[in-house]
Amino acid sequence: MFNIALFGAGRIGKVHAVNIHNHPDTKLYSIVDPYVEGANQLALQYNAKIQTIEEAMLDPDVHGVCIGSATDTHANFIELAAQNGKTILCEKPIDLELSRVRDCLAVLAKTPVSMLVGFNRRFDPQFKKLKSQFGAGVIGKAESLLITSRDPSPPPANYAKASGGMFRDMSIHDLDMARYILGEDPIAITAHGSCMVDKAIGEAGDIDTAVIVMNFPSGAIATISNSRRSGYGYDQRMELHGEKGLLQAGNMKEDLVQHWGESGCVSAKPQYFFLERYEQAYIAEWAHFVDVLAGKATPICDGNDGERALVLAEAALESMQTGKTVLL
Amino acid sequence: MFNIALFGAGRIGKVHAVNIHNHPDTKLYSIVDPYVEGANQLALQYNAKIQTIEEAMLDPDVHGVCIGSATDTHANFIELAAQNGKTILCEKPIDLELSRVRDCLAVLAKTPVSMLVGFNRRFDPQFKKLKSQFGAGVIGKAESLLITSRDPSPPPANYAKASGGMFRDMSIHDLDMARYILGEDPIAITAHGSCMVDKAIGEAGDIDTAVIVMNFPSGAIATISNSRRSGYGYDQRMELHGEKGLLQAGNMKEDLVQHWGESGCVSAKPQYFFLERYEQAYIAEWAHFVDVLAGKATPICDGNDGERALVLAEAALESMQTGKTVLL
Amino acid sequence: MFNIALFGAGRIGKVHAVNIHNHPDTKLYSIVDPYVEGANQLALQYNAKIQTIEEAMLDPDVHGVCIGSATDTHANFIELAAQNGKTILCEKPIDLELSRVRDCLAVLAKTPVSMLVGFNRRFDPQFKKLKSQFGAGVIGKAESLLITSRDPSPPPANYAKASGGMFRDMSIHDLDMARYILGEDPIAITAHGSCMVDKAIGEAGDIDTAVIVMNFPSGAIATISNSRRSGYGYDQRMELHGEKGLLQAGNMKEDLVQHWGESGCVSAKPQYFFLERYEQAYIAEWAHFVDVLAGKATPICDGNDGERALVLAEAALESMQTGKTVLL
Amino acid sequence: MFNIALFGAGRIGKVHAVNIHNHPDTKLYSIVDPYVEGANQLALQYNAKIQTIEEAMLDPDVHGVCIGSATDTHANFIELAAQNGKTILCEKPIDLELSRVRDCLAVLAKTPVSMLVGFNRRFDPQFKKLKSQFGAGVIGKAESLLITSRDPSPPPANYAKASGGMFRDMSIHDLDMARYILGEDPIAITAHGSCMVDKAIGEAGDIDTAVIVMNFPSGAIATISNSRRSGYGYDQRMELHGEKGLLQAGNMKEDLVQHWGESGCVSAKPQYFFLERYEQAYIAEWAHFVDVLAGKATPICDGNDGERALVLAEAALESMQTGKTVLL
Repeated sequence: MFNIALFGAGRIGKVHAVNIHNHPDTKLYSIVDPYVEGANQLALQYNAKIQTIEEAMLDPDVHGVCIGSATDTHANFIELAAQNGKTILCEKPIDLELSRVRDCLAVLAKTPVSMLVGFNRRFDPQFKKLKSQFGAGVIGKAESLLITSRDPSPPPANYAKASGGMFRDMSIHDLDMARYILGEDPIAITAHGSCMVDKAIGEAGDIDTAVIVMNFPSGAIATISNSRRSGYGYDQRMELHGEKGLLQAGNMKEDLVQHWGESGCVSAKPQYFFLERYEQAYIAEWAHFVDVLAGKATPICDGNDGERALVLAEAALESMQTGKTVLL
Repeated sequence: MFNIALFGAGRIGKVHAVNIHNHPDTKLYSIVDPYVEGANQLALQYNAKIQTIEEAMLDPDVHGVCIGSATDTHANFIELAAQNGKTILCEKPIDLELSRVRDCLAVLAKTPVSMLVGFNRRFDPQFKKLKSQFGAGVIGKAESLLITSRDPSPPPANYAKASGGMFRDMSIHDLDMARYILGEDPIAITAHGSCMVDKAIGEAGDIDTAVIVMNFPSGAIATISNSRRSGYGYDQRMELHGEKGLLQAGNMKEDLVQHWGESGCVSAKPQYFFLERYEQAYIAEWAHFVDVLAGKATPICDGNDGERALVLAEAALESMQTGKTVLL
Repeated sequence: MFNIALFGAGRIGKVHAVNIHNHPDTKLYSIVDPYVEGANQLALQYNAKIQTIEEAMLDPDVHGVCIGSATDTHANFIELAAQNGKTILCEKPIDLELSRVRDCLAVLAKTPVSMLVGFNRRFDPQFKKLKSQFGAGVIGKAESLLITSRDPSPPPANYAKASGGMFRDMSIHDLDMARYILGEDPIAITAHGSCMVDKAIGEAGDIDTAVIVMNFPSGAIATISNSRRSGYGYDQRMELHGEKGLLQAGNMKEDLVQHWGESGCVSAKPQYFFLERYEQAYIAEWAHFVDVLAGKATPICDGNDGERALVLAEAALESMQTGKTVLL
Repeated sequence: MFNIALFGAGRIGKVHAVNIHNHPDTKLYSIVDPYVEGANQLALQYNAKIQTIEEAMLDPDVHGVCIGSATDTHANFIELAAQNGKTILCEKPIDLELSRVRDCLAVLAKTPVSMLVGFNRRFDPQFKKLKSQFGAGVIGKAESLLITSRDPSPPPANYAKASGGMFRDMSIHDLDMARYILGEDPIAITAHGSCMVDKAIGEAGDIDTAVIVMNFPSGAIATISNSRRSGYGYDQRMELHGEKGLLQAGNMKEDLVQHWGESGCVSAKPQYFFLERYEQAYIAEWAHFVDVLAGKATPICDGNDGERALVLAEAALESMQTGKTVLL
């Protein structure tokens, strides 16, 4: 049984808390969050301790840390945990600044500690099935990949700046998935953006609609279609076209009931947002982290993957701003 | 090129007129219909003659007759055509009275004339694919067959009586399909009916909702689910379950466009009614009839099939009225 | 926090153990099972006690019992639990003999104890959505209900006798769902059966393929199509046709990935069997039971529902054996 | 009744011949084709004349010409037909050279003759439904358009050069559809290409895999995903995402039969190629042309549309070759 200190008792922290509790090999040992009320509530529910950052980092009974706190705390917590020998699961991003990411990873590299970066989509059963079918040669060599990724509704405009912009905040998942699915790093990236959803987002210097094209050494081309607002839930689809056919991962719908009537055949929307759509992914991510804790696995997405995705997000931004393809 | 005399210039006559015209080997030679205006209009459109019954039957240039006139004329026209050596396509039913059907078939049997009975669904590409997959052994031995067949909206109640009732008028197609798909004749039939759609239909002594169960010598069980009113178009589906899996023929929708929005994912209804749903079936039926005319094929549904389906419809009626299974 | 004693550490007991553990308001307090090894393993995993029947029944710290033991123990355990004031969740059936069911329910009725009978499908999110849409008037008055229910593969023939036969063991779920969805009790039942899947099942006096038709006071007709072997996973579908359209609950597939290639478009099979298909249903069932424990709800399926379903199963058997409709 | 002279008795000529014959208001009057055997066969089948170019152009009984001959004859035939007052339906492209297209259109512009350019996809019922739903405001303002267009298998490499390359030959349809669906002309185009399918195509200086991104004045972004080889039939899909949701036009499958078995759920591939997929589009295109002939409609795609699509194809080529976005 591994004892886990959870940093962050917010929305994503609660997701991890459930999974830590439900997994037969982990215990939600302590909660660390400056927002006392949220921390207490979670601690009560799971019979966990409240700890300060220092207490958790120095507590020899803590085996692993789960970092789901504010983005600007991630790098510090990673460094502290690494220096104290705690195995790390950290939500993306490591940091919004590439230089800070690199410094942090340098600290980590001097320790034997493993870190799993929370690119949750890598653990989604649909995308894993697609990747395993591809790996099994079902469609032969990859030729083009199309990722559709749309949020149900836009965040407040002021979130735009804080989050690092659409590419760093949202597209970064898709950039990671393109690398992961194809198993190569792109050699060129071209990005196009528009502000179509909310003027205030544009005024804050961000976009809400984007298309990103990446060229890979094998000749394969990946296209990402992003929007901050779908109007019909969380649209998360992937199509991988290869020499022998197509693999297509569709949306998970809220239910499978159809109503056939005067206005046609009506079925449910895709599941609303990431908490619903990636519920199974978070469970699988946690199970993988337990394997890492147990020394049975190395992280399938680590600090390097976190850095690479950020490099791509910055290159996409440069491409959009300059109107030119960026060679990598 | 075969010259065709078309008996009946109504709704179904017009369907045949188009197909006769479009087929490279047939010509719409003449129209026979007591309703002069309709006949003239069709004759004008296709540059066809107007003929009386006698003229058409005696005209040596007429090679085939297509009988799409009122039900109570079918048997007479079949007999005349047979006696005059015209190859026959006759819409179902041959007659609503089994004894008249048998007399008519006896007359036909004394001639060398071939007759195709218009059980249009046998020619539907979906059901043909299902049957051919079954025939190819894809699901092994048949175990249960489920036919769903619902009209978009009920006919006027007075049609109920004229049409011979729901079993003779509507279910008869499904009874024929069960025999055709399974390739056996049932040994028992049990029918259940309700008047749910229109009280006037019940007052006219008919039903509008039915379930018919048939047992076959092989042990296979067929179930037919019928309604005079779907509320969402023409529902024509079939499922054949066998020892190695399931074959399922779905509805043809009006189009394949989906709208994903606030109220879910909306797609089109099934095609409205038999003219739309079985457009391809009527074309294939005509092509088969041309093969019969050319001596290249024998009818895949003949007088015997017409008689058998009527026998089943009457047995279903008896079962419903007595509340007992009828052994055949 | 409610302490639960779990009777039965087998396949279904393990499902409940997970849900008891994961629910924030219940604790897996003790395991009762004569098979010591299985009991110990489960107790170890969840840090639960091992108790004898008597210890659990008499332990004042046990608030509720979850009965997932062998069928022939259910009635006894229900009586003991009722007499000791423990809230009960009991897997179906209460007993295979109707008289024993009635005796047991009479004992229960003399106590204030609530019992939830585990008709798990009532808690399936798909069927709940269908029922709630129907209840909201989306399709108006119900006219016909079609339940398709096929197991992935047949049980051993000797299970046939022990289980009480196909109607009592398997169809009983569908009989319950027909009552539940339509909200009425049938007035007549007609059943047809065949042995198509495994001769040994027939030799043991049972069937493996069945169609059951029920007539309801409203005029609605329900049809159940059952098979012990689908060849493609667990087929669990429902169609409710009403005056304004159709509600259709489809199968849950193993995943949503499609492969488009030379041999067509291939997607996953339905989830394999009830543990997978009804995983969410078992979670929801447990959540409902916690509400019953907490006095916030009365059981949505109780002893009476268990008895009614068994009455229908016996009537179906009588109908099949006599070849006649059984009036209820 | 309009008399039509058909130029070209090849594959596409035969498609038009059927539709000319089947339409109640047109007659296949004559065939013009230097390949005598093909011309004779078609003439015999439809009881049409054989004419030389001059005879057809000068024959006062010819009301319209349908040009389905070799690409390098199109511009000449258009000019001749225009000068002789024949209404024109011309297959795309008008010519592979933009200057020749412009000269030809200048000649046409001096006459009162109407010309319909055969961008067949504009007449496809699926895409028409999508466009009409968009026009009706179902999804509000357009934000992103995604066109997937893949041929079933690649043409011979030597076809690459003759056809003007992938953008001029294949993508041109998609470039036209993007303009048509969005109702705007793009202001920038960026293209990416790869040779993944057949090395010989690359050696001939062409590509077989492409992604094209277009920016529109409204801010909308269109993405085209092309391949010369799908491995699963003709993949022709479109997704239009707007402020209130998504409109999605799916593939037409060869049939709607599904086989559920051990290896999953197998359904049919998309229809094989353009003759099957766009059969209804060609019929609708012809019906529209008859309306143009009758003075009831103006062509929904004319010479200007043909020219615009070619301009976009050339700009796409320039973008791919220079690695830069081309501003229009």
